[in-house]
Amino acid sequence: MLNFRSTKAMRNIQVCYSPALFQFYDSVDRIVVVTDVLRATSAICTAFQHGVKAIIPVATIEEARQYRQMGYMAAAERNGIVQDGFEFGNSPFSYMSDNVKGQTIALTTTNGTQAVDIAKNASKVIIGSFLNLTAVANWILQQNENVTVLCSGWKNRYNMEDTLFAGALVEALKGEIESTDYDDAALAAQRMYNEAKDDLYGFLENSSHRHRMNRLDLEKDVRYCLQLDVTDVVPILQGKHIVKAY
Amino acid sequence: MLNFRSTKAMRNIQVCYSPALFQFYDSVDRIVVVTDVLRATSAICTAFQHGVKAIIPVATIEEARQYRQMGYMAAAERNGIVQDGFEFGNSPFSYMSDNVKGQTIALTTTNGTQAVDIAKNASKVIIGSFLNLTAVANWILQQNENVTVLCSGWKNRYNMEDTLFAGALVEALKGEIESTDYDDAALAAQRMYNEAKDDLYGFLENSSHRHRMNRLDLEKDVRYCLQLDVTDVVPILQGKHIVKAY
Repeated sequence: MLNFRSTKAMRNIQVCYSPALFQFYDSVDRIVVVTDVLRATSAICTAFQHGVKAIIPVATIEEARQYRQMGYMAAAERNGIVQDGFEFGNSPFSYMSDNVKGQTIALTTTNGTQAVDIAKNASKVIIGSFLNLTAVANWILQQNENVTVLCSGWKNRYNMEDTLFAGALVEALKGEIESTDYDDAALAAQRMYNEAKDDLYGFLENSSHRHRMNRLDLEKDVRYCLQLDVTDVVPILQGKHIVKAY
Repeated sequence: MLNFRSTKAMRNIQVCYSPALFQFYDSVDRIVVVTDVLRATSAICTAFQHGVKAIIPVATIEEARQYRQMGYMAAAERNGIVQDGFEFGNSPFSYMSDNVKGQTIALTTTNGTQAVDIAKNASKVIIGSFLNLTAVANWILQQNENVTVLCSGWKNRYNMEDTLFAGALVEALKGEIESTDYDDAALAAQRMYNEAKDDLYGFLENSSHRHRMNRLDLEKDVRYCLQLDVTDVVPILQGKHIVKAY
């Protein structure tokens, strides 16, 4: 209980819009929430919801292939497409199968897994998506640390869907933490989310990533990833593995 | 006239929120609009309005000092403060004097002049601020190139005031260009500007840079820099010098 009370002290909350900017943000003694709404972190949350034991985020397709040769399940996505020689990419629907239960899966994606790698030296790295928004907020409230939301973006550029998740998380924390200090990016994300929250899908219709997704016929995935609170898992990085925090 | 008509073709408009991200954006055959609303690009616009002949943006205080020793006027700001041995920093009010008429001034600032340096290989680099917003929009409409707005940010982090200028420029261009393709950052900036435009000063009151400015007692400068269309100068980079495009 004392621990919970101490979370009401001043907290600093930052949003970093690109992995390439992470070096300019504070990362010591902070919780870093990595997000890649479309679709890596949504897929990771879904995987744990469906019984995956651990996910090993890797930077390259070659590394994922090596894990595969060692007998792990392995998943690889680039530019929205499952790579040759892998059964999985980063569609959440791929992880809703009994086949994944209890498995450890090596995963590489265009943006999301790179962002996890960049954040790995933070005191705690957790995985956020709309699917586990409230669970992530609650987990943060139980800690006594500052927070940086790291948006994976698209090839190091800003993107809208990760911004909206960051804003949703800022909004969720704001009501619960007594005194907070937000940076400009957090304020901007929060405002954007409040404009968008009544119709996330409609709001994203004009965004560049949605266009990309439309070309790839991923409408069903996009709609799935924009649902709030489908699961209460909080995936956390422990060494080289992402596992369930609880 | 033909040239003007051709500007109605499809244009791509991007916003880059940090000089550190510029490498991930297209810069070939594009106009780059560099902005550092508080205060470098506002000061540069003011300087040209008041008869300065040229500004030489330099990255370091040492370079500015060398220009000073060569007989140039020189200005140096770091963290909002005029540096020792220089009469000028980046307050617009410093440039409203008869002393600057016809002068060439070497200038180094915390963020803005570095952004100009990073953009220097673009086909055209111009200097934007709220003070010359409509002039910049009109100048762009007369060209037949895509546009990247480069926000100087604060030490490579996102900031609100540069985002608002980017959004104001996107908004100004949107009405005039028949067909445009915006990236997510441009869409976000435009939405932010539309939320803020009725009271830019009030909107910025919560931002981190405004807090910094308040600490430095720069209220008057901030209010000045948030005025629209005070001048019709369009400063443009030519080689190592910024001069008036017209």
